[in-house]
Amino acid sequence: MGFFSKDIETLDDLFVHTLRDIYYAERQIEQSLPKMIRKATNPALKAGFEKHLQETRGHIERLEKVFEMHGVAAKEVHCPAIEGILEEADDLAGDIADKQVLDAGLIAAAQAVEHYEMTRYGTLVAWAKQLGRSDCAAELQKNLKEEQATDRKLTEMAESGVNLQAAE
Amino acid sequence: MGFFSKDIETLDDLFVHTLRDIYYAERQIEQSLPKMIRKATNPALKAGFEKHLQETRGHIERLEKVFEMHGVAAKEVHCPAIEGILEEADDLAGDIADKQVLDAGLIAAAQAVEHYEMTRYGTLVAWAKQLGRSDCAAELQKNLKEEQATDRKLTEMAESGVNLQAAE
Repeated sequence: MGFFSKDIETLDDLFVHTLRDIYYAERQIEQSLPKMIRKATNPALKAGFEKHLQETRGHIERLEKVFEMHGVAAKEVHCPAIEGILEEADDLAGDIADKQVLDAGLIAAAQAVEHYEMTRYGTLVAWAKQLGRSDCAAELQKNLKEEQATDRKLTEMAESGVNLQAAE
Repeated sequence: MGFFSKDIETLDDLFVHTLRDIYYAERQIEQSLPKMIRKATNPALKAGFEKHLQETRGHIERLEKVFEMHGVAAKEVHCPAIEGILEEADDLAGDIADKQVLDAGLIAAAQAVEHYEMTRYGTLVAWAKQLGRSDCAAELQKNLKEEQATDRKLTEMAESGVNLQAAE
């Protein structure tokens, strides 16, 4: 099933469907991060990915809390977008021999993941507010802020040491 | 072929490969936007998509200029990420009967596209600078700024009228 289905009639349906889309995405990311941790060479990047794995597990728990608050089952729906993004990241794992170039590519792949999460959480926060669920919006906002912070750290790494080494 | 391939050995290879990834993505987006324009109901959203289609054509031309500046062929590489993102957007086209809910979904789909483009252009600008190609970086920065502006406008629509109507 894609992102949308014939079951969607109201904004509430769309909200729940998108919650399940990002729930699926977070669980896929949880499974992909250990490979990225193994592949990363730069110690700061490796540590950053390890921290993000812990955060991702927290995001999954927070999503389960939101499902419960909203009175719907914590289910996943298949999300082709995150699959495509992670497919690109996975291809990387065996394909770049130079460790520093590999690190630069890993950062780019991770930022694509972060941006997908940021857009979905941004949308979910807006919809939760419009549905009168400021309690759900507050929880989703916490995930959004952590994704934004991770993206900023990755940008700093992309603009400084990691890529500069790769360009030498 | 995925995002990475065995041909990538240097940061320059990665830069060119990623240029070809976003070139493919922009051309796929150019093909998808007319369907989103037809489906959108809210006049401001419809006009926004129409403007973005013109901008997308400008982005493609600017990318062709960057390929030429960098002395490499303007080729596309298959990008599973944008395909997944657009697959989700396309599924929408026939599946939500309520026009206002459909508009809310179209905005979410378009923002996922914008975020993918933003992350790729952000990465490309950083790499172009590190490769000493400030001329290429300046062109890519123009595309990045326009994607960011489009995303901000979509956020305004998501947070105001379009979704509020859908929640009624």
